[in-house]
Amino acid sequence: MAGMKLTKSPLAPETTPILPQIAGVEFAVGSNGFYGNRNDVFIARFEQPASAAGVFTRSSTCSADVDWCREALSAGQGEASALVVNAGNSNAFTGAAGVAKNNATIAAVTQLNNSKSSSVFLAATGVIGEPLEPEFIADKVREIWPKLGTASLNDAGEAFMTTDTFPKASTASASIDGVEVQIGGIAKGSGMIMPNMATMLGYVFTDANLSPSVCQALLARYTDSTFNCITVDGDTSTSDTFMLFATRKVGPLIEDVNDERIADFSVAFHKVMHDLAIQIVRDGEGATKLVDITVTGAASVSSAKIIATSIANSPLVKTALAASDANWGRIVMAVGKTDQPVNRDALSISFGDVEVARNGMRVPDYSEDAASKACQAQEISIRVDVGVGDAQAQVWTCDLTHGYVDINGAYRT
Amino acid sequence: MAGMKLTKSPLAPETTPILPQIAGVEFAVGSNGFYGNRNDVFIARFEQPASAAGVFTRSSTCSADVDWCREALSAGQGEASALVVNAGNSNAFTGAAGVAKNNATIAAVTQLNNSKSSSVFLAATGVIGEPLEPEFIADKVREIWPKLGTASLNDAGEAFMTTDTFPKASTASASIDGVEVQIGGIAKGSGMIMPNMATMLGYVFTDANLSPSVCQALLARYTDSTFNCITVDGDTSTSDTFMLFATRKVGPLIEDVNDERIADFSVAFHKVMHDLAIQIVRDGEGATKLVDITVTGAASVSSAKIIATSIANSPLVKTALAASDANWGRIVMAVGKTDQPVNRDALSISFGDVEVARNGMRVPDYSEDAASKACQAQEISIRVDVGVGDAQAQVWTCDLTHGYVDINGAYRT
Repeated sequence: MAGMKLTKSPLAPETTPILPQIAGVEFAVGSNGFYGNRNDVFIARFEQPASAAGVFTRSSTCSADVDWCREALSAGQGEASALVVNAGNSNAFTGAAGVAKNNATIAAVTQLNNSKSSSVFLAATGVIGEPLEPEFIADKVREIWPKLGTASLNDAGEAFMTTDTFPKASTASASIDGVEVQIGGIAKGSGMIMPNMATMLGYVFTDANLSPSVCQALLARYTDSTFNCITVDGDTSTSDTFMLFATRKVGPLIEDVNDERIADFSVAFHKVMHDLAIQIVRDGEGATKLVDITVTGAASVSSAKIIATSIANSPLVKTALAASDANWGRIVMAVGKTDQPVNRDALSISFGDVEVARNGMRVPDYSEDAASKACQAQEISIRVDVGVGDAQAQVWTCDLTHGYVDINGAYRT
Repeated sequence: MAGMKLTKSPLAPETTPILPQIAGVEFAVGSNGFYGNRNDVFIARFEQPASAAGVFTRSSTCSADVDWCREALSAGQGEASALVVNAGNSNAFTGAAGVAKNNATIAAVTQLNNSKSSSVFLAATGVIGEPLEPEFIADKVREIWPKLGTASLNDAGEAFMTTDTFPKASTASASIDGVEVQIGGIAKGSGMIMPNMATMLGYVFTDANLSPSVCQALLARYTDSTFNCITVDGDTSTSDTFMLFATRKVGPLIEDVNDERIADFSVAFHKVMHDLAIQIVRDGEGATKLVDITVTGAASVSSAKIIATSIANSPLVKTALAASDANWGRIVMAVGKTDQPVNRDALSISFGDVEVARNGMRVPDYSEDAASKACQAQEISIRVDVGVGDAQAQVWTCDLTHGYVDINGAYRT
């Protein structure tokens, strides 16, 4: 499955944070052997009904698991009893066989847990289009169910990696009405990354007592500025899923997302989402540079985002950055191709603190050396003003290197 | 300028066709030294007013040359006396300096040729954003003007190459009302190729006596199915220009594009446009495979084209093809991310004659060996039916290899 040994991204954080124990949820991990001996499946089980919310890929060829999660969230009104996630096979484009596999998995959980189908959530990531036997995951669930409570959230975060070179984890605590609550999040993703409502797979758990509607409102509030602002290759996965689970064990019941008692929690949750999203870019396949692109002076926020994304996805921009080349002409090109309102003759461009173009031309005192130096950094900020309005947007991406070509010639998605 | 020695594309045609002499136009070539000693500028001069028509980039950051050609075509009603094209500097994003350079060049030509400004056409390709001295190209025009008639159309085709590894040339003859007319075309382009109304730079010359409006109508008729159906990297150039010049020396005057006397000519002209467009894909930066993608069963032609282009531009699809991997799951992904009407559960996919998916699933007798074999060919046909309608479109592209990363890390566009 994993066609090659991947070395850890040079952009990886130095250490993985140790995630807190979240009251009211326990984990088990196991291996189906898709990646040698390492774990490639995890279960989360909630002690009492947890609040669940999710955002999912907008792909019209989404996986059976995404179909199911949407259906379950709606049918069960955001009540969760368990989550089963496997790597190695995405169960996308598997037709009736994919639905049969899901039904068998859900049946296994409801029998073990004495819970409703609609409270069981699923996700899968890996090869597209290869149906598994119906009981394949169900058998594994039955095998590792007795081990619930023996694994940590960090263990779960390692068990759904595919081409990831490091596990993505983030944590924060917050005070709700004077009571401290915990937040722990995990995510996976490395290629096929241009989420459209979510990332590859990401889960945040909290022990706070949030209603399902508050969970959904928090996701809606922060997804656009975090997971929907990252791109590795402009390719949108069939399995993108990001979910928030609140075990409701700690603190007062919150039923309104605008309740001022969760102001602190909201900030902390946003930070965790942002952190996980950026970690995915840091693990972009073959990435050697983390690039943030801010477009200002646009006609609207959506226009600013389209332009920033065009720059972020341009193979010519990305290969230049890989070579530490401050090739701002390609940024001009990527702005121009978007069909968005821009004023060519008012355009300005900076790399870090180095302004290279102003009013539609190279700056008079342009220094190739200074611009190149700004592009040699491992983290590069590009700022483009398109000179037509007041709106802005920021997008994060990475460079395009030989590593990307290697990984994607060798790995069967 | 050219940061590295490029080896000839493995997809290059075995030989370059020898283009005919087109009555009524003569050529001169010269060198500004952008690419060592080889020629990097050419002039075409028309003996009598020629009919001109053009299609240009839709980039909102287009070059000063594109601005000028649009203006001249309109002001001069499609009458041409000369064309000056240089490689090495695109004169894009050069503000007032770019306009000054153009004005000086045009003045040099009108003085030498005693012709109107609006009959002088310009184009430039190469680095973006580096202004040239106003007289830089004008001086070269004055130097090589006396050599007009000493160069061939093939020579011109070699003098505007940038990262091209072979000159693109195509020829055909046709009969108009029993009189044989000649068509000769040249094009350049290799990266930053996803034309939107035209390609990087392409010119077709004919001695036929076509009015300017007929020339423009022929371009309009065939651009969408030729140059607008190719992509190397999804990046749209700031300089894209495709022009047709008719010297009006041979055959009857044609003033209506639907005149049945040019039925044969239309077919021949279309063939030349198509041939030049495909040659650009064959010279895609780093390309090792020529890929044609046909999407059928779409809701509309434009929808089919959006889907085909999404497949053609997906880095994951392109890197898989580079590795001869029949990774059709990534095609499912690229279809799904388009937001176009598709029926996932009716989708079918073939590589060449090998059907790999049908009705939203892998075919029952799926053979990885057969699919891989189809992807080992140097020319690969991918066919996708999206199961919602009757419309179709075809797009040509190439694979994404280490060569693309190398070329674009080393070359300053």
